[in-house]
Amino acid sequence: MGPTLKDMDVERSFENARRAVERCRTLATLSEDEGRTTRTFLTPPMREAHRLVRSWMENAGLTVTLDAIGNLRGSLSGSHRDAPRLLIGSHLDTVPGAGAFDGVLGVMLAIGLIEALDGQRPAFGIEIVAFSEEEGVRFGVPFLGSRAFTGTLDRSLLQRQDARGITVAQAIRDFGLDPGRLDDAEYRSGALAYVEFHIEQGPVLDSVNLPVGVVEAIAGQTRLEVVFRGKTNHAGTTPMHLRRDALPAASQWIVEVEREASGTAGLVATVGSITAIPGAANVIPGEVRATLDVRHADDSVRTSAVKHLLDRAQLIAGQRGLELTRQVRLEQSAVACDRGLTDVMARGVEIAGYPIHRMVSGAGHDAMVMASRMPVAMLFIRSPEGISHDSAESVNIEDVASSLRVGWHFLKEMGLRYASTGAN
Amino acid sequence: MGPTLKDMDVERSFENARRAVERCRTLATLSEDEGRTTRTFLTPPMREAHRLVRSWMENAGLTVTLDAIGNLRGSLSGSHRDAPRLLIGSHLDTVPGAGAFDGVLGVMLAIGLIEALDGQRPAFGIEIVAFSEEEGVRFGVPFLGSRAFTGTLDRSLLQRQDARGITVAQAIRDFGLDPGRLDDAEYRSGALAYVEFHIEQGPVLDSVNLPVGVVEAIAGQTRLEVVFRGKTNHAGTTPMHLRRDALPAASQWIVEVEREASGTAGLVATVGSITAIPGAANVIPGEVRATLDVRHADDSVRTSAVKHLLDRAQLIAGQRGLELTRQVRLEQSAVACDRGLTDVMARGVEIAGYPIHRMVSGAGHDAMVMASRMPVAMLFIRSPEGISHDSAESVNIEDVASSLRVGWHFLKEMGLRYASTGAN
Repeated sequence: MGPTLKDMDVERSFENARRAVERCRTLATLSEDEGRTTRTFLTPPMREAHRLVRSWMENAGLTVTLDAIGNLRGSLSGSHRDAPRLLIGSHLDTVPGAGAFDGVLGVMLAIGLIEALDGQRPAFGIEIVAFSEEEGVRFGVPFLGSRAFTGTLDRSLLQRQDARGITVAQAIRDFGLDPGRLDDAEYRSGALAYVEFHIEQGPVLDSVNLPVGVVEAIAGQTRLEVVFRGKTNHAGTTPMHLRRDALPAASQWIVEVEREASGTAGLVATVGSITAIPGAANVIPGEVRATLDVRHADDSVRTSAVKHLLDRAQLIAGQRGLELTRQVRLEQSAVACDRGLTDVMARGVEIAGYPIHRMVSGAGHDAMVMASRMPVAMLFIRSPEGISHDSAESVNIEDVASSLRVGWHFLKEMGLRYASTGAN
Repeated sequence: MGPTLKDMDVERSFENARRAVERCRTLATLSEDEGRTTRTFLTPPMREAHRLVRSWMENAGLTVTLDAIGNLRGSLSGSHRDAPRLLIGSHLDTVPGAGAFDGVLGVMLAIGLIEALDGQRPAFGIEIVAFSEEEGVRFGVPFLGSRAFTGTLDRSLLQRQDARGITVAQAIRDFGLDPGRLDDAEYRSGALAYVEFHIEQGPVLDSVNLPVGVVEAIAGQTRLEVVFRGKTNHAGTTPMHLRRDALPAASQWIVEVEREASGTAGLVATVGSITAIPGAANVIPGEVRATLDVRHADDSVRTSAVKHLLDRAQLIAGQRGLELTRQVRLEQSAVACDRGLTDVMARGVEIAGYPIHRMVSGAGHDAMVMASRMPVAMLFIRSPEGISHDSAESVNIEDVASSLRVGWHFLKEMGLRYASTGAN
């Protein structure tokens, strides 16, 4: 492949883009919920999704298997015996009330690329991985599919229960799979790399008016809960100077959280949830609980911002005679994409004729888990208005076609480089 | 009375204070709830309360009747035929999980004053009114007792239901009373004035270290709901400059609410309830709903503060590209106590040997309703630490004794003045 792979013309890219989008829309009709798209780990609509995706994979010439965690895998061996594989993947599960493209589009684009090969066979193998679980909805733990794939699935998770008391192990059995064979789900063949196409789930590409962006890293994340404790009192009978109202304290801090994040490049900090207790219109809140979510591609920037924000909270509480407590709920390091592989993707963007926009993913992706085992790269496709995790999520057909052409140039570049390593 | 009324010595005031507090504690055991004090309109524990209060009134020489709304009324005619009555009252109902003194103490102090007469008979009559309902807990509407007493009870309220679907009319019947005789509950005799003793329910007297305070007015109140509407987005993937986060906007405003109220004498403004929607740690709030409670003794100060705060909310929303909506839930004018009657009460405080502390009540009281029919005055008794509507509510026995001596001097002064009007 590579030198011999013919170009994908614009017309073909639009044809395959349209088909990919149509398939996403079809899959969106397979849902646990009436009137909206909800498809979680190994539920009946996932079986229907597998039936369709398997047929599309097989028609494209892939050999399809289903592993014990429910990852649907379609492989094409390379033109060279024992050639390592390029893995291309994303997930088929969704959040409740999802759009049609989050995860699913990445799998459909991978199939679209295979279809564009028209029977040509690259020197390296290709395996499309449609992960069974990324969102963490059914069991409250994300990445079940890629964790099993990378051999990092903690087996104690098998006893975890969903809202109806069904364990992960039972869900696997109910789907006709064998939890005793989870070891076999781990990828043990040679892997060139893992690449993932995914809608951005944010407004950045839309705001700079570009179809695609090259992901350099997946941001690290700290999530914590902060509690300001003052004194509950009657809102009518307690003069301002005798109050220890927890809400203005929390409010002062929330304004500072926004200011600090806005003043630090690449930092996002969010207070998404706030509760004033007791929460009656005529009672001064004696306690306010608020969450804080902080993300950045550089772990040191994130941890120093978190420290600063907690210091500020402590100071504000102290000045107002309140108590402050905080509890870290999640601490997740940033994951860098592979620099060399990302440069290949950037080269693909350049050849396709677009400015290279390098960006950080603020959301988690399967690529984050895969990075523990192999080089990873990601291409983001513009989300119009940044709408995500909502039925209004959409894509522009032009952007999908662009991403296919970028993917095609990426494959060609990979072929060139693979050939030049002498493996040919 | 008046000139002939002997002084109440300190020992006697302590004796009657101890008895009043003990009676409050006894009544607090009469509750709908196990382990805490909850006694709402015309429930079985209220019947028990009536049995006890009636016996204490009768032993003090009062003639006791129960009107159709459930107000327990004990009267003592004056030494002069057809003399008008001085009404002294407060309420016997409580909030859920109440303290022992809110309302009840005022009734027990009135009885304590009658007991101190030792059979002497003032020139004017006295009627103690133990109102059946002030807190508005059972039917969501306060002042049922004083509204019926003043002939201002909207009869459509009779069809209002409690949480179990029982109407006000049915509750009256279940208590053995006749809702058809509500007209008879209206006070139609001659009234000199209404005076109410009540714990402060706030921290002001405690903070200035005084046993009692003279109430000049009951603050007017505006209660409204403010909604900031921005855009819900993913907390990880939406850069700070592309957000329309409703929570920092609301927070900025809450800090200004506090600043504005703190900078205006006598103004209190409280955001007691706040809801961020959707309210997940990793989602930018697209909407925040907050309540605002504003009170002041001067209606023009209050309405101008409300206007200013809503203008600021509008400005903050506008600067951030958010929408603002507001809805007024309650608008209640301030009620002034009678200046002359309040001066008599202040004179009582002075004779008792205390500095006169004039203050505004931030909470509503039966006196507010009674003011539509006659001159009213109120005396507040210190609430240690300002604790109210809580089982930790307390009183100092010294303060209760002080309030009895003030009440005694008030009675003497009233007698002097009544005599000087020539009614004698």
